Amino acid sequence: MNRPRVVLHPKHLESVREAFSRLDIDLVIPDVDDVVDAVASSGILVSYVWDDAYLPGLRWLQSISAGHDQFPHDAFRAQGTVLTSASGVHGPQMAEHAFALLLSLTRGVGAATRNAVNGEWKPMMLHELGGATLGVLGLGAIGEEVAKRAKSWGMTVIGTKRNTDGYSGAADEVFGPDDTAEVFRRADAVVSALPGGAETEGIVSREMLDSLDGWFINVGRGNSVSEADILAAIEGGGLLGAGLDVFEHEPLPAESPLWANPRVVITPHTAGLSPHYGRRLAEIFVDNLEALSGRGDWRNRIV
Amino acid sequence: MNRPRVVLHPKHLESVREAFSRLDIDLVIPDVDDVVDAVASSGILVSYVWDDAYLPGLRWLQSISAGHDQFPHDAFRAQGTVLTSASGVHGPQMAEHAFALLLSLTRGVGAATRNAVNGEWKPMMLHELGGATLGVLGLGAIGEEVAKRAKSWGMTVIGTKRNTDGYSGAADEVFGPDDTAEVFRRADAVVSALPGGAETEGIVSREMLDSLDGWFINVGRGNSVSEADILAAIEGGGLLGAGLDVFEHEPLPAESPLWANPRVVITPHTAGLSPHYGRRLAEIFVDNLEALSGRGDWRNRIV
Repeated sequence: MNRPRVVLHPKHLESVREAFSRLDIDLVIPDVDDVVDAVASSGILVSYVWDDAYLPGLRWLQSISAGHDQFPHDAFRAQGTVLTSASGVHGPQMAEHAFALLLSLTRGVGAATRNAVNGEWKPMMLHELGGATLGVLGLGAIGEEVAKRAKSWGMTVIGTKRNTDGYSGAADEVFGPDDTAEVFRRADAVVSALPGGAETEGIVSREMLDSLDGWFINVGRGNSVSEADILAAIEGGGLLGAGLDVFEHEPLPAESPLWANPRVVITPHTAGLSPHYGRRLAEIFVDNLEALSGRGDWRNRIV
Repeated sequence: MNRPRVVLHPKHLESVREAFSRLDIDLVIPDVDDVVDAVASSGILVSYVWDDAYLPGLRWLQSISAGHDQFPHDAFRAQGTVLTSASGVHGPQMAEHAFALLLSLTRGVGAATRNAVNGEWKPMMLHELGGATLGVLGLGAIGEEVAKRAKSWGMTVIGTKRNTDGYSGAADEVFGPDDTAEVFRRADAVVSALPGGAETEGIVSREMLDSLDGWFINVGRGNSVSEADILAAIEGGGLLGAGLDVFEHEPLPAESPLWANPRVVITPHTAGLSPHYGRRLAEIFVDNLEALSGRGDWRNRIV
């Protein structure tokens, strides 16, 4: 029996290459210039990179990212090409990363590390998450992992979700995006796990940040909030601090005042990194390979 | 009905003063020089400071620390004075602090903050706690809070405890102190929540640190491990990093090489700080005040 021929785009993480090389498939990792020909002969592409030249002959595209705005949904639909996302692959590590940023602020690790650079021992007042209220913007695959961990540590969790109908996740209370301000008013800390797109651009306002007597964490998209607003809210005395993994412009420019602010903790868009990324993606892929053969259901099917 | 007269030692945290001032007691906070007289007339002292001159007339001492080595147990016993500790008051915040240090290492927040001081955007490989094994040295009131949080985040937990008989805590497997090396060999990260005393001094050896292919966190006592051994194990390539809140000498001397090591995260002995400290201590105190009157059981009774 022939093993299915699968093209893995050459621009990807090493952990993805490793995980796919262990699967029982005929794996092809072409040079960038040879992707078009390889796809035409296999019909299956694993990639987060897109070029319209990949479309002819493509039966199924497994994205290695959770987002899928880069792919032409209509053209896929017209050709009968299936599009599946990697939703769920990033949740666990991004939730841990969100807590790493939040705890660095509440337990003073960020400030202490800046002091350590100067060899300074400076105790400061610290805070406790247990019993506090966490707001989660975007209760999707990633936001739910944040909510679950917060609940298990004794926090109350409120959050927002595009469609709140029949919500059955970990949060105690869920609101639509129009009530984002309510979440900021009631929470002690807010984690944004919002996806990209026109609906979320600039959704977090200066007023919301001012009303948050606590910490703002962003592992979602940099364009959902203005960095100038974050700094102004901190300087205004309302916002206690910010933990940011995503930015309006990346890499964060050297001249950004965020770098030097002792109430800001910065990581370089690394929340999604994990040694288990490739393995989780491969698990989704294997299930979807069965679905392509008519056995079982598709996972994360977008088109 | 007379309210009980209670002496609160003047050397304490503001949060303790606030919490006790809300209780239905006749609270006395004397000058340091007047503590002896105040205790003689009330018989009840809340303190972590001790002077043998406080003993005459003392019926009950409520310590505001979890440790109680500073108090003369035999003299208390001889006089019939009750000694109760504040065990349990520190657990939640210290567990959060241990995770703040651990996640700062696994999610690169410590290293990223050192880079931020120089305005440098440098992504690095990160790790995931879910599915990993956490070792907890000292599964007492603090260690159990660490273990509970680790279990709820999908970690396997192993640990040590002085007396393992009938253990019914959160850890999956518990060993005696003699098997500390086994915990280091099997764990991906080790958190020490060990108490002070001769039994724990130097208990963590260079060999144990070398055998840990992961991270070492210390929120227990600084003298349980040699800082030179920690640095040597990191330089040797085995130990991936250390998160330290306690040290052999505090404040950590300016000349310590720990300050500058990018694989070390330092906080200035602040793991026990929490705005809820005073409230939790007051809850223990109120229960014990009842016990003193013959109603209900003592909490944390040592003598």
